[in-house]
Amino acid sequence: MTEDTPNEIVVVKSEQSKINSVDFSNLIFGRVFTDHMFICDFKDGKWQTPQIIPYQAMTIEPSARVFHYGQAVFEGMKAYKDENDDIFLFRPDQNFKRINTSAARLAIPEFPESYFFDGLQTLLKLDKDWIKPGVGNSLYVRPFVIATEPAISASPANQYRFMIICSPAKAYYNEPVRVLFAEKFSRSADGGVGFAKAAGNYAAQFYPTSLAQKKGFQQIIWTDASTHQYLEEAGTMNIFFRINDKLVTAPNNDRILDGVTRKSVIQLAEDLNIDCEVRRVSVEEIKSAAKDGSLKEIFGAGTAAVISPVSAFEHGGDVFEIEQMEKDSYASLFKEKLLQIQHNLSEDPHHWRYKVK
Amino acid sequence: MTEDTPNEIVVVKSEQSKINSVDFSNLIFGRVFTDHMFICDFKDGKWQTPQIIPYQAMTIEPSARVFHYGQAVFEGMKAYKDENDDIFLFRPDQNFKRINTSAARLAIPEFPESYFFDGLQTLLKLDKDWIKPGVGNSLYVRPFVIATEPAISASPANQYRFMIICSPAKAYYNEPVRVLFAEKFSRSADGGVGFAKAAGNYAAQFYPTSLAQKKGFQQIIWTDASTHQYLEEAGTMNIFFRINDKLVTAPNNDRILDGVTRKSVIQLAEDLNIDCEVRRVSVEEIKSAAKDGSLKEIFGAGTAAVISPVSAFEHGGDVFEIEQMEKDSYASLFKEKLLQIQHNLSEDPHHWRYKVK
Ligand SMILES: Cc1ncc(COP(=O)(O)O)c(C=O)c1O
Ligand SMILES: Cc1ncc(COP(=O)(O)O)c(C=O)c1O
Repeated sequence: MTEDTPNEIVVVKSEQSKINSVDFSNLIFGRVFTDHMFICDFKDGKWQTPQIIPYQAMTIEPSARVFHYGQAVFEGMKAYKDENDDIFLFRPDQNFKRINTSAARLAIPEFPESYFFDGLQTLLKLDKDWIKPGVGNSLYVRPFVIATEPAISASPANQYRFMIICSPAKAYYNEPVRVLFAEKFSRSADGGVGFAKAAGNYAAQFYPTSLAQKKGFQQIIWTDASTHQYLEEAGTMNIFFRINDKLVTAPNNDRILDGVTRKSVIQLAEDLNIDCEVRRVSVEEIKSAAKDGSLKEIFGAGTAAVISPVSAFEHGGDVFEIEQMEKDSYASLFKEKLLQIQHNLSEDPHHWRYKVK
Repeated sequence: MTEDTPNEIVVVKSEQSKINSVDFSNLIFGRVFTDHMFICDFKDGKWQTPQIIPYQAMTIEPSARVFHYGQAVFEGMKAYKDENDDIFLFRPDQNFKRINTSAARLAIPEFPESYFFDGLQTLLKLDKDWIKPGVGNSLYVRPFVIATEPAISASPANQYRFMIICSPAKAYYNEPVRVLFAEKFSRSADGGVGFAKAAGNYAAQFYPTSLAQKKGFQQIIWTDASTHQYLEEAGTMNIFFRINDKLVTAPNNDRILDGVTRKSVIQLAEDLNIDCEVRRVSVEEIKSAAKDGSLKEIFGAGTAAVISPVSAFEHGGDVFEIEQMEKDSYASLFKEKLLQIQHNLSEDPHHWRYKVK
């Protein structure tokens, strides 16, 4: 995979699997973790020997910089199993690049490619029984990096921990979601860290989202912080609008996460000869389209939910209901196509599937 | 102090003090901590019995939400000792209010006033030998709250830990600092979390600050994210400009931390009949004033450094040196006044000193 020569990974296996205590038909997202985890510490200017050890709590100083200054970035990806018990990831090269892009923006040292892929594969093979075959089932994989140096000066840390933990998952959202277009709060600034998967970006959304939820909307579609006129992305999904038969989605910029699902949808649209414009999308345009009936669909795109249809949006006190299409919905089409590729049930012309060896 | 009836604090004393191993004449900020720390956990919908225990590492799950979604806020305050061995804090009511303002913005439950003050006082009395008398010496006190719930769904946690740790300190910066006015990067957005002491706000500044440092500037003065035309605050200080004999400083808004030192300087200026305008300050105004000689001083105001004079600024490729005033400097005047009040060496007309009982 790479030119780095990795240290051998030190593996300590768990004595007994917890898997029999888990009810796979009743999974709540992100609460149950597999038997093992991957750990690699950065100190003395370099990443140390990677380890895989039994999943467990860890010891950390109260002065660890992550608690005070939020130096923490993460990724989210999924592993799938086909009927032959082969394990696949979906475009993990993109997640690898992105975690290092995020890290660089937060002054965290980049993680070596070979450590990432060797660690990931070794971990997934050890915990392979946690990945259930069948469309909709997956193992959510969470790489993350935190600043562990025990010193509370407001500057980049000299010690970090890179980890991968895994949690079995079913589809994240099942129902179409009702969303609110942001008018006052914002997610990120020009010149800020919105394009990074930085921990602090998420906590910042919780309070505005809780206000939206009180009004009956599960999520917020963030708009640009300066004018609130352009629609950008949701809390954990990029966002697409279908106007008649054309798709539109906001361009990447330093406020928006460059989503793997988003870029895959854009490619699939091209493959399927669906017109997809990547350009600024104004709130006014979408409201007019909702009024004149040309707004056919809105959907989110992200690893957790794959594709998440939107059934209504609110802006300026007006609520617009979006009738869900019985057939020929783009949301269903893309979800189907993506799941087929992810689960090794279809061709893979762009080589997005990554087989764990 | 309050109407809450606190649970009794459970105190476990350390068996032996580490104090003799500390070289108080060679302190690096934020690396050495006192013998005890304050802990209070939130679970089952309420804050549990507060505890003071020996300072030590703690056990936390890799899935603790703080690592993934950055739900973490903090405060910074200082304790001082006078010649009679009395311990004082400076306006701790402001820090208490502010940590709860920060918490609310990050969907973290507010902390009870009585727990805060009882915890703080009990802790400071236990670790009183760590507070050295003498102007310039202090004990830096760091209250913080982190989301500890072991579940990686992107929503507010149901479990938190509130802590107070303390670190002996000398003055933070000694030399005047050279600063860069931000032209591309930004610290926070309108409608964002800039006014909160949220952990993620700090990590976001590290990379731009490291670029500034490579160019020979220790800090960045952040400008508004939309236009970069108005000067807001520095990474850990609010900022004042002296034009002839008039002071100007940016107004509070949702991007700027409402600094305790800043508001104290504004009050002292009023007391001293120094004209202080709280209004937007444009980069152009400051550059013109630097050119025509009316810009006499720039200084930062914050708990760590108290007052920190600026000796040069850069913008648009131009560097402006600011000659340091030998006498009648406002920076020196305010620093002197504040230190006198903090160390119980002067009158305290506004009741800013808080005596630990
Ligand atoms: C803010 C944000 N936008 C968009 C996405 C979707 O990105 P991806 O498709 O890579 O999962 C995520 C991902 O989880 C996200 O956190
Ligand atoms: C961003 C920021 N601005 C200003 C300040 C100064 O605030 P205070 O005077 O309350 O310490 C701080 C504090 O540490 C800060 O973090």
